[in-house]
Amino acid sequence: MVMRTLVYNEGVPTMRVFQLEGGWSADHLVIAERPMPEPGPGQIVLRMRAASLNYRDTVVIQRGYGSQTGQLPLVPVSDGVGEVVALGAGVSRVQIGDRVCPMFSPNWIGGRPTAARLGATLGGPLNGVMQEYMLIDAEGVALAPPHLSDVEAATLPCAALTAWSALVTEGKIEPGDRVLIQGTGGVSLFALQFAKMLGAFTIVTSSSSEKLERARALGADATLSYRETPEWGRSVRDIAGGDGVDHIVEVGGQQTLPQSLRAIRPGGTISMIGVLSGPSMEARLGLIVTRQVRLQGITVGSRDSFEAMARAISQHQLRPVVDRVFTFEELPQALTYLVSGAHFGKVCITHG
Amino acid sequence: MVMRTLVYNEGVPTMRVFQLEGGWSADHLVIAERPMPEPGPGQIVLRMRAASLNYRDTVVIQRGYGSQTGQLPLVPVSDGVGEVVALGAGVSRVQIGDRVCPMFSPNWIGGRPTAARLGATLGGPLNGVMQEYMLIDAEGVALAPPHLSDVEAATLPCAALTAWSALVTEGKIEPGDRVLIQGTGGVSLFALQFAKMLGAFTIVTSSSSEKLERARALGADATLSYRETPEWGRSVRDIAGGDGVDHIVEVGGQQTLPQSLRAIRPGGTISMIGVLSGPSMEARLGLIVTRQVRLQGITVGSRDSFEAMARAISQHQLRPVVDRVFTFEELPQALTYLVSGAHFGKVCITHG
Amino acid sequence: MVMRTLVYNEGVPTMRVFQLEGGWSADHLVIAERPMPEPGPGQIVLRMRAASLNYRDTVVIQRGYGSQTGQLPLVPVSDGVGEVVALGAGVSRVQIGDRVCPMFSPNWIGGRPTAARLGATLGGPLNGVMQEYMLIDAEGVALAPPHLSDVEAATLPCAALTAWSALVTEGKIEPGDRVLIQGTGGVSLFALQFAKMLGAFTIVTSSSSEKLERARALGADATLSYRETPEWGRSVRDIAGGDGVDHIVEVGGQQTLPQSLRAIRPGGTISMIGVLSGPSMEARLGLIVTRQVRLQGITVGSRDSFEAMARAISQHQLRPVVDRVFTFEELPQALTYLVSGAHFGKVCITHG
Amino acid sequence: MVMRTLVYNEGVPTMRVFQLEGGWSADHLVIAERPMPEPGPGQIVLRMRAASLNYRDTVVIQRGYGSQTGQLPLVPVSDGVGEVVALGAGVSRVQIGDRVCPMFSPNWIGGRPTAARLGATLGGPLNGVMQEYMLIDAEGVALAPPHLSDVEAATLPCAALTAWSALVTEGKIEPGDRVLIQGTGGVSLFALQFAKMLGAFTIVTSSSSEKLERARALGADATLSYRETPEWGRSVRDIAGGDGVDHIVEVGGQQTLPQSLRAIRPGGTISMIGVLSGPSMEARLGLIVTRQVRLQGITVGSRDSFEAMARAISQHQLRPVVDRVFTFEELPQALTYLVSGAHFGKVCITHG
Repeated sequence: MVMRTLVYNEGVPTMRVFQLEGGWSADHLVIAERPMPEPGPGQIVLRMRAASLNYRDTVVIQRGYGSQTGQLPLVPVSDGVGEVVALGAGVSRVQIGDRVCPMFSPNWIGGRPTAARLGATLGGPLNGVMQEYMLIDAEGVALAPPHLSDVEAATLPCAALTAWSALVTEGKIEPGDRVLIQGTGGVSLFALQFAKMLGAFTIVTSSSSEKLERARALGADATLSYRETPEWGRSVRDIAGGDGVDHIVEVGGQQTLPQSLRAIRPGGTISMIGVLSGPSMEARLGLIVTRQVRLQGITVGSRDSFEAMARAISQHQLRPVVDRVFTFEELPQALTYLVSGAHFGKVCITHG
Repeated sequence: MVMRTLVYNEGVPTMRVFQLEGGWSADHLVIAERPMPEPGPGQIVLRMRAASLNYRDTVVIQRGYGSQTGQLPLVPVSDGVGEVVALGAGVSRVQIGDRVCPMFSPNWIGGRPTAARLGATLGGPLNGVMQEYMLIDAEGVALAPPHLSDVEAATLPCAALTAWSALVTEGKIEPGDRVLIQGTGGVSLFALQFAKMLGAFTIVTSSSSEKLERARALGADATLSYRETPEWGRSVRDIAGGDGVDHIVEVGGQQTLPQSLRAIRPGGTISMIGVLSGPSMEARLGLIVTRQVRLQGITVGSRDSFEAMARAISQHQLRPVVDRVFTFEELPQALTYLVSGAHFGKVCITHG
Repeated sequence: MVMRTLVYNEGVPTMRVFQLEGGWSADHLVIAERPMPEPGPGQIVLRMRAASLNYRDTVVIQRGYGSQTGQLPLVPVSDGVGEVVALGAGVSRVQIGDRVCPMFSPNWIGGRPTAARLGATLGGPLNGVMQEYMLIDAEGVALAPPHLSDVEAATLPCAALTAWSALVTEGKIEPGDRVLIQGTGGVSLFALQFAKMLGAFTIVTSSSSEKLERARALGADATLSYRETPEWGRSVRDIAGGDGVDHIVEVGGQQTLPQSLRAIRPGGTISMIGVLSGPSMEARLGLIVTRQVRLQGITVGSRDSFEAMARAISQHQLRPVVDRVFTFEELPQALTYLVSGAHFGKVCITHG
Repeated sequence: MVMRTLVYNEGVPTMRVFQLEGGWSADHLVIAERPMPEPGPGQIVLRMRAASLNYRDTVVIQRGYGSQTGQLPLVPVSDGVGEVVALGAGVSRVQIGDRVCPMFSPNWIGGRPTAARLGATLGGPLNGVMQEYMLIDAEGVALAPPHLSDVEAATLPCAALTAWSALVTEGKIEPGDRVLIQGTGGVSLFALQFAKMLGAFTIVTSSSSEKLERARALGADATLSYRETPEWGRSVRDIAGGDGVDHIVEVGGQQTLPQSLRAIRPGGTISMIGVLSGPSMEARLGLIVTRQVRLQGITVGSRDSFEAMARAISQHQLRPVVDRVFTFEELPQALTYLVSGAHFGKVCITHG
């Protein structure tokens, strides 16, 4: 990885950032210097302490969301946590020293999603958290749960909130509901922890018996290897009993949806979160129409939802599952490790 | 069409029914005689007055729902209306002379859908309404709005209730919402009439400018020819203004869903009702996930919903759009006409 | 208590029942004989094993609900459990030997409450569970969780379902929500157990420090003596933090509501369940209007809700809190004990 | 009314405002001069064009909400409309020349009510709209429907939005629902117009047969004089048919609630909006508990709700009912007229 330095006028304080420049691929990730940000009215500056990677970050780097991905140079990575070190005029929501998470959708305070609220997101098109100091509107952050380490707190903005929105805000699952959770990545393990917090019965799938064992240790009531059981739809239904599972956390997409449609009960909800196994949907429409199934797209969530989630995480002293921590400079390696799929839980970065 | 007569013991009163026997195709539709039904405890007998066809009826005849289609011989057609002519022991819900519609899902009184409630449906696997006299549980019928003719009342159980469930029970649309309605078939025209009743802004698509003109006469605020504009997704979005339409009544399925996903606003709902253009889904999952779109399968509805709908229809003196009426004996021709797609509104049958 | 025996023709099998006859007071409770019930079509007969008392039972005996209380002679008590010993024609929902709870509202299968569904309730105006053998529609019962004893299972139909409806069906509370639970009676302790199952933060009030200690042992996160703190509204608000509690299980009524209105957060819900401290409401309307507070009356619930609750109880192996068990003949003493308020949890009866 | 002028340094531009100073009563309303406001970052300045009175304004002037009423001097009146004449740094939501309504709760963009969102309201504790030029955050305004006159647009922020929140956002009423609307004041007539827009059946009460006649002209399906029928609860129930009305717009409070509890159906909702007939609640709790009735406090609403309402008003070209228009200087007379109760619809003020 090339290391280069921008030249500034004498005395202009600078900071280091990781940015994508000159092209859309991991090869174009470089450490650069930028002027230290100054907070305008209503803004704050955070000294970033840690970051956490999501699958989305690997898509952004390849401009996977087209024009919505943003412009170069772009500071990548959506999830992080920092300390408030400067307040702009008129800021009262937070104070110097507060440890806060920048929201993935800083404009989505509450209420229904809109293009404006969903369109402006950190880590593309807006600059993300791989900066030593981050400038953001005071309205666009929320306090991190005090009991969490920096690295743990950094995992919440996208990964945890997506799981919360799927199961709580949108899914409204009840105790006793059967919830199928695909895989053991970041969102999936938060979904497992929240589903248990909600009193649901949880079924986790994975290709690795070792990961399934760890999922059971985290509270999974039943587990299933989709390697041993490629046609797992019926098996899940048998485990759930009754008409099938009430809710599915769908992170696979193309390959898994057909099985999910066999596992879901009439009137059940499939939370559409990820497309790890392919970008297009190939499913029998009849299974949706004639069984009144709901497919609900989930796009992280609002600040209101984050604050409700943070309150629950604090009450339950819930601890995110951190798989491995890399240094700031090791971002490329961290991304490579994430893509490898070897992880169980979150891949994180400490700003040192 | 063959006409044959079953032989019964002397003096056994019989009735005429249309039934599918000996094979799964329209060629196996025959008029047969069956013993006059006697109501058991909790049951009633209806003298059927009229029926109405749905696309589903054409699928059933070809055993399109597989094992869930039922067994031969099968009395086809789901929608109808009849007069109560006999009460079994302990029946108090209805009285002799009441004009009632048998519910498509006679076991689904209210509450959430279940396999048991969705699985037992009239016109396959249960016998349908093409009988002179119909035996049914008293709990499985609801009063028809008094101002409607028999033929009009016969259109409500599936077609109207599906539109009601999509827009009201599940869709919860509000005045000012933008609603896209595909086509001008039975469900679509009910959706148009209900959407106007709800105060929504309605956009109707069709391939026929003449049908679009009739849709405008029924209250459509905007119309669009998908023949002239095959890529209508963006056009609909322009008409709706803002982020796109709030709700889509999706009856096309395979061919139309990709356009619908372009027309829907973030957070909007697509009611999955029909698969007229193809049985499988081929859509970009990202458009659902990243815009928090909901795809909601709609399977007619419960008796509670029917009674709420009937109350609204009565208050507004709403009249279903009847395209053409056939005689009982003309069932095969009526089905052929429905498949031709030439109709605007409902294709009905009078039991004479 | 007088013991008398009805005379029947030779050979007519009879059973014992407790009934209120000749007047509306506990003094008119007598054990009588009635002919053994025979199941008609769609009906079943239960050999009752246990019953459980609710405050409502003491109101019924004094004809506290006026004409809705029913006619004499009346078999009292709403909650119980029994074994299916006879099936009427056409019954398939249950089998001989099943252990089931009769529903408090046997006509309310699912969907919205109606006068017809809420009006027909066991233990007045319909005969209750204090009979050796009970006749009921097969649709009006649900399976009891297998892990519960008969006495424990008998506590579910009213007491547990009321708490479930308040917190889950209507309240839709989320993990991290602050829930205030008044007292330690039957409904309140179920509310405490369900609120913990839901991941909520729970605050329990009582006049007895010993009962508060037992509540903490059951999982209460905070407790408060309204004897020591008569103006507990503000104290609860301080404990909850933020704007106040999200949800209140209101069983006191007249005396407690003014304090509840101080403790509830803007937009919060007060579940109106009981009137133990007085029948009329004397509250400042402004506290409801200007803070968008919801007062939600709770009337037990539907069979759909009971089945969802039973599934959750089974998964969590939850055990109801039984305070004391009386014999069938000790019903009057059991009622006296309930009114004394000395109990913690449910007062039950075994049919022996 | 005294007219006095503040002295400013030479050349400081000033504007006229109506303010309450020196005491809490209409006698302390004076016209004063204040320096012309300058927009800071994120703020805008509106040249106010019209205002509209609510009952709340008369309460504020007497410090009826205690400490939450705010401090003197206070610019009164919550509802108004103005033209954007100056933009602060970074404002992009609106442009110079836009005609906008300031929101009653400028901090409540969307999502659930909180103390912070409900506590900061125009016309007390924050300064209201009786100023020639008004300073406000750009986030705290919304575009007015173009087809409305200034005076008509001025009626929307509190009065119309309260009715919308009651029937749509919280009430979720459906076509065919029976809605009882008390009186013919501002909120009530908006409720009538919205209820018709929603396809509901409307019943309006008043003491004046002439006002009832005007209500019928506006679309009321049934009307009732509570002067002729003081015990109107049962009459309303008879008109509604079935179990009673589904929804009640409760503006009377103390005197009317007991009748409302007789008129509402089991499971119905009473929107608690006003306390015109008295501040405290005296009702039989049993009528709420045993019939699962909901009392829902309504506190105007969020900007999201206002924008949804404005869209519906524009589509339907709905025109608010304006009773009478006063000049800016006639504020005291306008308030006196409002209190007299002689009005039908809104009492407005033009800033001239």
